[in-house]
Amino acid sequence: MTALIVHSADPLNAETPLARLRERFIIGQGDFYVRSHGSIPAIGGVQHRLSVQGRVARPLELSMAELRSRFAQRRVTAAMQCAGNRRADLQAVRPVSGDPWAPGAIGNAEWTGVALADVLRAAEVEVGAGEELHVGFGALDSVTENGRTFRYGVSIPLAKALSSEVLLAWAMSGSPLTPQHGFPLRAVVPGYAGVRSAKWLGSIEIRDAPSECPIQADDYKLHPAAETDADPSHALTIPALTINDMPLNSAICEPAPHASLPPGPTRLRGYAISTTLPLSRVEISADAGRSWIQAALEQARSPWSWSFWEAIIPLGKGRHDLVVRAWDGAGQTQPASQDEVWNDRGYLCNAWHRVSVTVA
Amino acid sequence: MTALIVHSADPLNAETPLARLRERFIIGQGDFYVRSHGSIPAIGGVQHRLSVQGRVARPLELSMAELRSRFAQRRVTAAMQCAGNRRADLQAVRPVSGDPWAPGAIGNAEWTGVALADVLRAAEVEVGAGEELHVGFGALDSVTENGRTFRYGVSIPLAKALSSEVLLAWAMSGSPLTPQHGFPLRAVVPGYAGVRSAKWLGSIEIRDAPSECPIQADDYKLHPAAETDADPSHALTIPALTINDMPLNSAICEPAPHASLPPGPTRLRGYAISTTLPLSRVEISADAGRSWIQAALEQARSPWSWSFWEAIIPLGKGRHDLVVRAWDGAGQTQPASQDEVWNDRGYLCNAWHRVSVTVA
Repeated sequence: MTALIVHSADPLNAETPLARLRERFIIGQGDFYVRSHGSIPAIGGVQHRLSVQGRVARPLELSMAELRSRFAQRRVTAAMQCAGNRRADLQAVRPVSGDPWAPGAIGNAEWTGVALADVLRAAEVEVGAGEELHVGFGALDSVTENGRTFRYGVSIPLAKALSSEVLLAWAMSGSPLTPQHGFPLRAVVPGYAGVRSAKWLGSIEIRDAPSECPIQADDYKLHPAAETDADPSHALTIPALTINDMPLNSAICEPAPHASLPPGPTRLRGYAISTTLPLSRVEISADAGRSWIQAALEQARSPWSWSFWEAIIPLGKGRHDLVVRAWDGAGQTQPASQDEVWNDRGYLCNAWHRVSVTVA
Repeated sequence: MTALIVHSADPLNAETPLARLRERFIIGQGDFYVRSHGSIPAIGGVQHRLSVQGRVARPLELSMAELRSRFAQRRVTAAMQCAGNRRADLQAVRPVSGDPWAPGAIGNAEWTGVALADVLRAAEVEVGAGEELHVGFGALDSVTENGRTFRYGVSIPLAKALSSEVLLAWAMSGSPLTPQHGFPLRAVVPGYAGVRSAKWLGSIEIRDAPSECPIQADDYKLHPAAETDADPSHALTIPALTINDMPLNSAICEPAPHASLPPGPTRLRGYAISTTLPLSRVEISADAGRSWIQAALEQARSPWSWSFWEAIIPLGKGRHDLVVRAWDGAGQTQPASQDEVWNDRGYLCNAWHRVSVTVA
């Protein structure tokens, strides 16, 4: 774990250094960011059982061996990212709660497991026409928050759970899940914030309503800054957004922030991600966003993956404010300033990513 | 047509005044914006035939009566909007080509017809595994561009054509299509720019590649400003984006730009639209974007519709720079400035919409 930047040791929260992040399209488990809310449970893979219950005609109780033998094995290449990735950029505007993640709370992996949809079909979900059910994930880690201790739990809408990309995974990038990454079984919900991809998965419950666990009910909500600033002049309030789909984003991995570079052609490299619509382009600025050039963007290898980009630009002596922004297939791009997307919990920072360097 | 703001009479291009736009959730045909590229063809509804050809096992030739009797009738409530809606806001930054549309080149309608997917199934599309085919729409209007005269033609990806929301429609908001809106038959492609919803539809062709008509091949492309500004320093170029999906957007319909208002509580009303992800909120500023309040947002009545919003804010004496911005379900919002999304053809303007008013 020495390779990672550790924000807290217990619970373990650590991210990948930016230079390492951009080395390989698929990040190995040892280099992959870790986001924990509580203990890392020690689970025996042979004894472990997954229960499937709630609004189903046939409740299931499955060992890992049964899960492997009863259902077709699937592989999905997908990025996992924390809803708080790039929180440090929001922290720089005004204080926010949570760890100050740089842009390394993200990684791309190849996940191996079974389709959640196949398991739900075997359990025979009982859903009426027009009903919007939820699939709860009950995990085995113990979380303490605000004086309460509880098992980690979240949920996703049934419609997403039935999508072919959602897996119950036991392997990550070619090897069995390590304890930090959820051994022996975790949910993998591509496109959604990592919080929904419960690790150490013990139970699945088909529910009428979202999970009542505080992780789902209280945390990972996007609150409008105007509301949390408690501006007394507005009477119209709306419920906070439950964070599921992640926004268009990109980051510069090289050069490093505050690097001192020799003059001449300089290589910029980084990642971009869009899981709702395809990426259409990535642009680089060397003058704080006044002018832009096109980066070379790798073709998407999966709709759920990040994409790598690269550009070579000449840099003369002095300070340069490097910026990256991505565009999606609907001509949408990232907001220029963190001010525009600041929120009290520091989620979903997707403002232009800026790195200042000095050429000596 | 006197109700509309006419940008050109031949071809007829006219938009709905903003105050009228916000009167009804469904806009009547007479009040609906009109975007024409050429003549408005006079077509006999009884004689009209739709052909379905190309990569199909069973080519079809259907009268309107056959279309109605052979396939189930479907209704979809969906907004139609021009890719150039709000172009005037980009024009204000730097010159762009095309008519200076205000935010009225959009409207919400209830479309009646048959599912394109049903017609394609009847024609038995021949598609191999992994093949990405296109569905071409051949129209009967004659367009003259750059000295060439041709029939209007566009295409959409087969995957979109098979989505249940895509219709071949003969009626709009309860009455048969008028000549301006495509009588007797048009394509309706919810979520996509209006250009793909070909009016006066005469033929459908399942193709290996997108339509070669200049409307598809040359027009309605989003070019990076950096490229069209012909910055000689960048060697990496990318193909322009073919505009299909439309971005998150919103506009203030009331009060009118430059209105003189009495002091006191002032009602702001407008529309917001997001067809890729659900809308999550709409925010209003009365100080050019320094502070925001939540507008009351109507619940979406269809994933393809616009949504109306409303807010009442106190305005004291002086000039007020009113602004609206919408947010989607991934915490994405609109760009602050038109500069950020300026492009040479003036497409997809979704910067914050600003209206200045004076309180006397």
